[in-house]
Amino acid sequence: MNPEPVSPINIRPARRDDVPAIVAMLADDHLGKARERIEDPLPASYYTAFDAMARTPQLQMMVAEDENSRVLGCLQLAVLPGLSSQGASRAIIEDVRVASDCRGRGIGEQLVRWAIGEALAQRCKLVELFTHQSRKDAQRFYQRLGFQPSHVGMTMRFG
Amino acid sequence: MNPEPVSPINIRPARRDDVPAIVAMLADDHLGKARERIEDPLPASYYTAFDAMARTPQLQMMVAEDENSRVLGCLQLAVLPGLSSQGASRAIIEDVRVASDCRGRGIGEQLVRWAIGEALAQRCKLVELFTHQSRKDAQRFYQRLGFQPSHVGMTMRFG
Repeated sequence: MNPEPVSPINIRPARRDDVPAIVAMLADDHLGKARERIEDPLPASYYTAFDAMARTPQLQMMVAEDENSRVLGCLQLAVLPGLSSQGASRAIIEDVRVASDCRGRGIGEQLVRWAIGEALAQRCKLVELFTHQSRKDAQRFYQRLGFQPSHVGMTMRFG
Repeated sequence: MNPEPVSPINIRPARRDDVPAIVAMLADDHLGKARERIEDPLPASYYTAFDAMARTPQLQMMVAEDENSRVLGCLQLAVLPGLSSQGASRAIIEDVRVASDCRGRGIGEQLVRWAIGEALAQRCKLVELFTHQSRKDAQRFYQRLGFQPSHVGMTMRFG
């Protein structure tokens, strides 16, 4: 395997004015495109959700930006207390996305490594994430970073 | 399939004095027994975690009790805002347990159906949960309740 070229990025908390760039990445995906609504302006529900996330201290929505302040990746991290494993907190990573023209440059890896470091800093004993069964590349990617495909991720969708 | 006898239970938020019963159920399991510490008194970390959970409005730790107020099941539900699916909240079910001498009586089903109803009431579009690959019975149970084994649940454990 050739080492991938790694883009220098800055990882920072998402701001409200990042929402259109984040939603564009969520929609730019074979599963996401049917679930999102890209309009100008965006449906207000995205901003309502962003504001709810910003009020939730257990959640961090992060973006990766390049030297031109273009947002080219995102990730959501939740750190939740729980009783199991002697009262350990667990971290849950969701909504990892990289702009389609920026993939293969180590951006997702830097985002996920940030999340692992943050989970450790918050004394989590466990980091969890779901990848769709069809995302075989993603499963290899996460295994390379040290995740195990230990669980079945079961889902129920409404409406 | 014969219908299972269904035990009448009451589902209510967990109290601090339920922690020993909950931890006993977490430990009474082939995966949990290596991760928990059953001592009298319990390690303080369990109570610290319970207090953190009680301060987190996005989390609900529920117990099932019988008519004698014995706690014989538990479940943790998190409802988290997120941007994907047009800013939909998602529900995450964790730590579903039923006392080993009370299984097969519909208690887990009542707990999980409570969580599904709560997720709907909080306008979630998605309910997610992880089951260990080895828990084939659990996977059949959740499929019977309407969950799909759509994802791989990837985990990383520390220490």
